[in-house]
Amino acid sequence: MTRAPIPPGALDRSGPAAASRRRLQLAALEIFGAAGYEELIPPVFEYEDVFLRAGGPEVAERLIRFIDRDGRVLALRYDFTASIARVAATTFAQASNPLRLCYAGGVFRQEPERGNRPRETLQAGAELLGKSGLDADIEIVRLTLELARSAGLKEFQLNLGHAEVLSGGLAALAPEQRTAIRHWIDRKDRGNLTRALDRATPEARALLSLPFVIGRRAALEAALPNAPQTARLGLESLLALDARLSDQERKHVVYDLGEVRGLDYYTGIHFELFIAGTGRAAGAGGRYDDLMGRFGRARPAVGVSLDLDTIAEAIAAAGAT
Amino acid sequence: MTRAPIPPGALDRSGPAAASRRRLQLAALEIFGAAGYEELIPPVFEYEDVFLRAGGPEVAERLIRFIDRDGRVLALRYDFTASIARVAATTFAQASNPLRLCYAGGVFRQEPERGNRPRETLQAGAELLGKSGLDADIEIVRLTLELARSAGLKEFQLNLGHAEVLSGGLAALAPEQRTAIRHWIDRKDRGNLTRALDRATPEARALLSLPFVIGRRAALEAALPNAPQTARLGLESLLALDARLSDQERKHVVYDLGEVRGLDYYTGIHFELFIAGTGRAAGAGGRYDDLMGRFGRARPAVGVSLDLDTIAEAIAAAGAT
Repeated sequence: MTRAPIPPGALDRSGPAAASRRRLQLAALEIFGAAGYEELIPPVFEYEDVFLRAGGPEVAERLIRFIDRDGRVLALRYDFTASIARVAATTFAQASNPLRLCYAGGVFRQEPERGNRPRETLQAGAELLGKSGLDADIEIVRLTLELARSAGLKEFQLNLGHAEVLSGGLAALAPEQRTAIRHWIDRKDRGNLTRALDRATPEARALLSLPFVIGRRAALEAALPNAPQTARLGLESLLALDARLSDQERKHVVYDLGEVRGLDYYTGIHFELFIAGTGRAAGAGGRYDDLMGRFGRARPAVGVSLDLDTIAEAIAAAGAT
Repeated sequence: MTRAPIPPGALDRSGPAAASRRRLQLAALEIFGAAGYEELIPPVFEYEDVFLRAGGPEVAERLIRFIDRDGRVLALRYDFTASIARVAATTFAQASNPLRLCYAGGVFRQEPERGNRPRETLQAGAELLGKSGLDADIEIVRLTLELARSAGLKEFQLNLGHAEVLSGGLAALAPEQRTAIRHWIDRKDRGNLTRALDRATPEARALLSLPFVIGRRAALEAALPNAPQTARLGLESLLALDARLSDQERKHVVYDLGEVRGLDYYTGIHFELFIAGTGRAAGAGGRYDDLMGRFGRARPAVGVSLDLDTIAEAIAAAGAT
């Protein structure tokens, strides 16, 4: 008999690679549990509609789909947040707020243009539902920093932004201009932005400076006087959050106002966790107050998910275990 | 927006149901780890061939399949043993024997005739590869009993048989008779067995009595004098195993020589774990020395897998948590 191959993008994790991932998963579940988060174990497959409702159309081409016996289209779990939103609107529809849920397991995504990238990623994460405001935001930011520390990471950084900082400026644009402006903000392309926003309203012209703000508290304070009203609310939210962080926590937080990729999803703070030496985010989170309502039970929501594969690889590369 | 449905056979596990499953999983992984088993985390999907090679044709209709982007047929993990056999023949092809591997996660099976049964089951299990003989068998039996005890179960029973007890008698039959005889053994149908085996060889006529042997050590000893030669080897293996069990362990073991459903798979001992009050097995295992070779690297193998959903439900029903 010949040896059996493994499908493209599928991975066997064994030896220290498996042990470190399991260790990270348990540490995360313990930290979540100690903070009052109850684990939810959703199914590995859902109707594709669940992931599309939560993630929007850009999720569509990255789903791993299959047809069920009854002809309906299923998809492997794209993220946990979608399933949590479904459950929060059914099983937990009558549960009193706030609702603290956590999870750990694989998510399945493919990139049509890059066939051999892993299609399964191990995640752990938490969602705080039914609570708006700074206290809830800071609870999730703190959990994220605690998870990173407990994993044994030393050089890590949370890049933190706020959806309101750019949303007013973007809303002030003509709809047909918005996609290009977002693209140029994403690319940090000052030349094209300057040309495109030459005759724009003051609110939209703030997009020439705000997306380039990156730094600590002082950077936010410097941006505040010239910011238009909606952006100011976002900046003040971040300043209030910063004031609540401990010195130890603040060392790991950098404010980055130029992140536009999550703007259709996030409604308040949003962040990515970066580990020194890794090229991709090891975690992401933020506030998405519009998401739960898409499943029939509106609730504010803030959450985080960690990519345990990226964290485990960073730890292995650093020889930290 | 309407609430989103969940596909048939998919389950959300939340609250105490999720907590108990996670607790059982961790306890199992800890026991396996303490016994020297290293965790393997195989992918959630494989080429369907992997599961068919390991499980044979009867697996085919229970696979949850989908077509990959390259047109090849994938299937959700039907069991962990198949993936372990694949990995043992590739990543671990050069590893020295014995090889101790364990796992925990979901397996996916559907029953075409019973559409609403759960299609995902949470398992934890262990495989001891590259070691034949009683020491290896007893290691797996002991682990199984320890797992059941550590789960807090009190009334549980391992129904233990041995493939050689019936294989000689079945081999002595005409091939066209074998399926019917196995069916009647499975149904404990003495009437049809008696008629069908009326003029059979003495070896085959042992199938009139051996499948009805169920009990403790004394039942094996009573069956021994009249057993044909191949059956005798199986009985003696079970007696040798029994002699090695502690009194505490022996209380939970019942020898049951009438189990025929695993006979295409198992080559030595085989067992099922039953918990008082549950209608289905909460775990199964045994020796399958022919399996690894189907993946290009022959090795003896003995293993066990536990159904954590069944165990968690039994504990919940007993109010034992």
